[in-house]
Parts: sequence; C-alpha cells; structure tokens
Amino acid sequence: MPREVRERQMLDAAVAAFARQGYQAASMDDIAEAAGVSKPLVYLYLKSKEDLFMACVRREVGALVAAVRQGTRERGLPADQQLWNGLTAFFTHTAARPDGVAVLYRARTQGEPFAREVAAMRVEVVTIVTTLLGQAAQDAGCDGELAEREVSGLAHALVGAAESLAEWANSRTGEHIEAPSAKETAATLMNFCWAGLENLMKGARWVPGVAPAPHGR
Amino acid sequence: MPREVRERQMLDAAVAAFARQGYQAASMDDIAEAAGVSKPLVYLYLKSKEDLFMACVRREVGALVAAVRQGTRERGLPADQQLWNGLTAFFTHTAARPDGVAVLYRARTQGEPFAREVAAMRVEVVTIVTTLLGQAAQDAGCDGELAEREVSGLAHALVGAAESLAEWANSRTGEHIEAPSAKETAATLMNFCWAGLENLMKGARWVPGVAPAPHGR
Repeated sequence: MPREVRERQMLDAAVAAFARQGYQAASMDDIAEAAGVSKPLVYLYLKSKEDLFMACVRREVGALVAAVRQGTRERGLPADQQLWNGLTAFFTHTAARPDGVAVLYRARTQGEPFAREVAAMRVEVVTIVTTLLGQAAQDAGCDGELAEREVSGLAHALVGAAESLAEWANSRTGEHIEAPSAKETAATLMNFCWAGLENLMKGARWVPGVAPAPHGR
Repeated sequence: MPREVRERQMLDAAVAAFARQGYQAASMDDIAEAAGVSKPLVYLYLKSKEDLFMACVRREVGALVAAVRQGTRERGLPADQQLWNGLTAFFTHTAARPDGVAVLYRARTQGEPFAREVAAMRVEVVTIVTTLLGQAAQDAGCDGELAEREVSGLAHALVGAAESLAEWANSRTGEHIEAPSAKETAATLMNFCWAGLENLMKGARWVPGVAPAPHGR
C-alpha cells in the first residue's frame, strides 16, 4: 500500500480519536489499531503524538478553508446568493465532517502551538468574508458609507456566528431531536444576518434563489 | 488590610498577568510583586497557580454574566431596545475589562478544567438571549412560526457574533487605528442582526431609540 494511503488512514483514525476523546485521552495504540497498522509505523510516519495531532489540525484547517473558497468561487452573483453559497458550503462541510470540526475545536482549546493554527485559519476565512462583503457594498453603491472598519466588524460577526452555529448544529447530533440539515442551518444564519431579526419577527424570511427579495423589499 | 481587599488585589494582578502573558508564562513572583504582597501570602490565600487562575476565571465569568443580566433586566421594552441594551452592556463590559475578557479567552484555549467554566458561562448567556428572542417573537405574534429550534439557533448565532466582535474590537487597541467604542461595536452588531445586511447595504441602518423603525419599514 502506498505511503500516502497508509498516512491518510492514520490521519482518519487519529482525527476520530482526537475528536471523540481529546488530545490527552486519545491513545496511540488505539489509533494504530483503528488504522490497521502497527504503532511503530505510526511513529515512523508521524513522529510523535504532538506531530500527529498537528498533522490532523493542518489537514482539517486546509479542508475547511478549501470548502469555503470553493463555495464562494463563483463571481458576479448577487451578494445574497454568494453569501448563501458560502454559508451552505461551510455548513455542508461542518455537517459532513463533525470529527474534523471537533478536532479544530479541540486544537483551539488545547493551547499552543495548535491554537495558533486555528487562529490563522480564522484570519483567512475572515479575509474571504471581508472581501465578499466589501464587494457586496460596492455593488450596492454604498462602499463609501460602509467604512472599511465596519465591513471588517461585520465579517468578524458573521464568522463568529457561523462558528457558533456549526458547533450548535453538531452538538445536537445524538440528542433525541434530529440535527438541523446544513441548508437549514445556513438559512437560519441568512435570516439572522441578511433579512435581519426585525424582518424575521414579522415573518419576512430570506428565501434562496428568488429575485426580487421575497420579503417584499 | 482585610483579607478580601488583599485577595482582590491579588486577583487584579493575576488577571493582568494571565491576560498579557498567558497561563504558562505568567509568574507567581511577578503577580505577588504587582499585588504588593509576598509570594507565600499568594499561596496561602489562593493555594496554587492553577487555583489562582481558576479564581480569576470564575471572577471574570461572574462579572460578565452580571453585566449581561444587568443590561437586559428591564422588561416591557420593544425587542430591539432590549437587544440594544444587552449588547451595549456586553460591549461596555468587554471594552472596560479587556484583561478580564482575555483571561476568559485564555481559559477557553487552556484545556480543562478551565475551558469548562467558559463553556458553562456561554450556556448561561445563550439562555438569556434565547429567552429574550423568544419573548420578542411572542410580542411580534410569530412565536408559532419561529420554531423553538430556530430561536435557539439564532441565539447561538448572536452570542458567537458578539464574542467574535468583542475580540476584534479589543484586538484593535494598540493598533494605529482608534479602537471602536462599545456603542459603535453594539451598533455594528445591531445593524448586522436586526436591520440585516440587506438593509445595511441600502443604507437603511438601525438607529437606537427611534420609533417607528428608522429604516422605513
């Protein structure tokens, strides 16, 4: 079996173990067994538990950023559609890879050097969202009114809201209530940040792919 | 000097040290010196570095939750006014106590048992916001339409956005740009979540204390 396949198997097993048990509690024995390889091979390939965890963190950071980039790659769409695409891509990713997201959460709460990787990812995602909102403001002809500082603040608000919702949606798996789907979670956030709570309370929701805006403005 | 005064001095010094240097790097010698007491006295009162850090975390958790409760205590207001009061209280607190907020952030990324305290605080704040949004939905007569699950999702989005914005606002202190004021940050979040990005892009902002809603709906 080629090294890259074996390494992927090890990372898959490690991501599952770290996500479910945490960095301290996950054992290299269990990871090797779940990956179907010997423990010395894990050490040969990934060097140490710390390096293995870092490899997991980096893989999951890369996958999440790639999903967001992929979701927002289509240019020339109306701002709400582009935001909707980005959010759908993000929540589809977080719903499909709950262990991967849990590893990022563990990394953030595990101290350095892992927290730094997650912080860098966050900067990257905030930059994507800032560009998107800046473009939307420009399209709407209000790029002067909406100061750069405010766009940056809005991007941080959006990323924080999305992170928090992803964690919330994933935490509901295993409860007796069905977890919300990725589209449902993305719609909740669109209603929150695009239509706004004021419209939502009036029953004027944001609905994807309908133009003009279906809440009557 | 009474014990509680001395203990408060120690906690003040410890919060500043942990916030700026992190849990590992902060030294008990420096904390004792900054508090104007001997190191044995710090150990006598607070037992260990871990206990001292935990005391800091608990104090800052308590202060933050109290600020949010205080800000949202007035009942019978229109929903946007109540949300505005809560957000203003939150950002006034986080702007006034940047070291306290930084300690909570450090605690969240420091692993157990500290991360658990911050998680419990988050549950408490989410509960306050869920109640507030549920009440707003009821006032607007849409408590049936807005399912309980969605209100919970919206509350998580709001808390995540607020956390992220507080961190962003505080991280700008010391840059060559002036940090946004608490009211400015609260207004950014109100525009984001109440008016919604769609209205904001049209220049239809949410403005505090004006009725009917100033963006013409």
